[in-house]
Amino acid sequence: MGSLTTDHGVIETPIFMPVGTLGTVKGVSQDRLKDPIFAQIILGNTYHLYLRPGTEVIQDSGGLHGFMNWDRPILTDSGGYQIFSLSDIRTLDEEGAHFKSHLDGSKHLFTPENVVDIQRILGSDIMMILDECPPYPSDYAYAKNSMELTHRWAKRGRKQFLETQTLYGHRQFQFGIVQGGTYKDLRIASAEFMAEQNFEGIAIGGLSVGEPIPLLYEMTEVNTDVLPKEKARYLMGVGTPANLLESIARGVDMFDCVMPTRNARNGTIFTREGKVNLRNSKWKNHHAPLDPDFPSDLCQKYQMSYVHHLLKSNELFGMTLASEHNLQFYLWLMKEVREHIKNDTFASWYPHMVTQLESKF
Amino acid sequence: MGSLTTDHGVIETPIFMPVGTLGTVKGVSQDRLKDPIFAQIILGNTYHLYLRPGTEVIQDSGGLHGFMNWDRPILTDSGGYQIFSLSDIRTLDEEGAHFKSHLDGSKHLFTPENVVDIQRILGSDIMMILDECPPYPSDYAYAKNSMELTHRWAKRGRKQFLETQTLYGHRQFQFGIVQGGTYKDLRIASAEFMAEQNFEGIAIGGLSVGEPIPLLYEMTEVNTDVLPKEKARYLMGVGTPANLLESIARGVDMFDCVMPTRNARNGTIFTREGKVNLRNSKWKNHHAPLDPDFPSDLCQKYQMSYVHHLLKSNELFGMTLASEHNLQFYLWLMKEVREHIKNDTFASWYPHMVTQLESKF
Repeated sequence: MGSLTTDHGVIETPIFMPVGTLGTVKGVSQDRLKDPIFAQIILGNTYHLYLRPGTEVIQDSGGLHGFMNWDRPILTDSGGYQIFSLSDIRTLDEEGAHFKSHLDGSKHLFTPENVVDIQRILGSDIMMILDECPPYPSDYAYAKNSMELTHRWAKRGRKQFLETQTLYGHRQFQFGIVQGGTYKDLRIASAEFMAEQNFEGIAIGGLSVGEPIPLLYEMTEVNTDVLPKEKARYLMGVGTPANLLESIARGVDMFDCVMPTRNARNGTIFTREGKVNLRNSKWKNHHAPLDPDFPSDLCQKYQMSYVHHLLKSNELFGMTLASEHNLQFYLWLMKEVREHIKNDTFASWYPHMVTQLESKF
Repeated sequence: MGSLTTDHGVIETPIFMPVGTLGTVKGVSQDRLKDPIFAQIILGNTYHLYLRPGTEVIQDSGGLHGFMNWDRPILTDSGGYQIFSLSDIRTLDEEGAHFKSHLDGSKHLFTPENVVDIQRILGSDIMMILDECPPYPSDYAYAKNSMELTHRWAKRGRKQFLETQTLYGHRQFQFGIVQGGTYKDLRIASAEFMAEQNFEGIAIGGLSVGEPIPLLYEMTEVNTDVLPKEKARYLMGVGTPANLLESIARGVDMFDCVMPTRNARNGTIFTREGKVNLRNSKWKNHHAPLDPDFPSDLCQKYQMSYVHHLLKSNELFGMTLASEHNLQFYLWLMKEVREHIKNDTFASWYPHMVTQLESKF
């Protein structure tokens, strides 16, 4: 258990960061993120915000904090992942990533330097370097070349970071990103490289892209064994509640994932007893709240018959109830983890919790 | 200014009732309806709730109050209007309205008696009789025949109401509905008929269906001139803030309309200075809140550039912010009206307010 101090507040780790793609965590207000969700830091997506509303609007709004009226920490990614997952046409060269907008087909270029500049404008407390995220599976030669490109970009990105300044008076951190596909020697080399660059924290990238879960855990551990323990270690894009516990056991401090909010909108929530499909007809005549002992509105205030009805009818309030519940659950789980770490009971507690989390209602 | 006392609380009139079609006011939580919107009563749609989740689920949930976890008054319509506006195939005879569900094509029959039974199960504080709502324009013969059918149905509905009881221990009221198209003599005859039936309140139906606004006001006044002043007079499906003021000047006590929430989801809000299209590009670079003197989150907490961005990006939070704002504005306006009535300044105040409400930002 540790902490990371930013000019917008202290982040206690291990922590989960709700994803606010376009300057809003889908279906959830900033007020609710503070209470009852107790989010300590949220994530914004550089690719999305750069295209909509654009950096000019955000700069004139006082950065992403001013734009969203959010005074707690924000982490922004570099956009690299979205270029590869969302834009149809993109080419990669030494200079950077050329891509067409998924919205209007307009042409853009992200370089290791300009993603620093863009994140200076966004004003995030933690910015990420531009990386290439290779698909799974990738052959060794591809993974190695890709990793080496990410390393060259990392040096350029760090240089740009050190030569530029924050625009709004608060301090910004820059995190490196480890790549290397699913090859141990590449993962070790990449972690050693990133550890040498003097970033304020380091992310493990390129995982949770379709590889089997045991391989995700194995590669994570290969990385955390090498990465310096005094710096925050952030596993990008992971995952289920059980994935989080297993990764924390392997040394990870920070997570982000769209799963809690995206699944919620589709009617799936996470609970202490596993995943629950709210659209399942078993809830149609269940006239009691789900779990009066869990402090979310969904669990306490409404009969399951009502929640089921809202989700089946695609009502906005159903999506909000489920999204708030899932985020509240993820943040509650991280708090439990921190307490168990503090009391030195994490190692004995978490395997039981993983079993429980992977059962079904 | 008056009041209507139900077992779920007192309703101060004039009042606007937010529409909760499927057991939820779209995009707004029950908690927010109470504060900061200060809704005193909400509306549920019998047609929609009968089809989804169905009366069995709602009865087992303890009625609509239990199902929604809403302890303030509820009014339910009779489903008549939805049958004519939503279901593709419907035939009308003396018995009732035969219709096919707009969801799955299944066949159903609403009669003056069974809409009472259904609303007993919903457990609304105020239920409405089954009526036929003729389209605009309708010729005199059609409007007269339709009105006479509604009158015969009204007698059957009242009889059923008096012969049945509430299922949940709280008192229910039944309101009649005046019809008569846009013909003065029919409107007068229908109002006189409904006034004689001893309903607890009377609605003006069949308006706001496409007729010119001056005709809406004229027919409303023809009705309120006849209807007993000691009973609540409810103008169904109306309307803009200016429509409300003009109708209150003509004696109306209660209103419902989907306009504040539906328009909000499309990006239009109502303010003291008129309608505002939040999707208009003029807001893209407007880096200040809209109106720090109006106590909605949309007006106070967020720059217009942010609200514009949310609505343009179809973000759920944008729809919620705008829906909450519009309802808060409608309920604020009704409170202003009640204070002006109390201070005997309504007649001099409202024409200026109407002018202001019909201007544009």
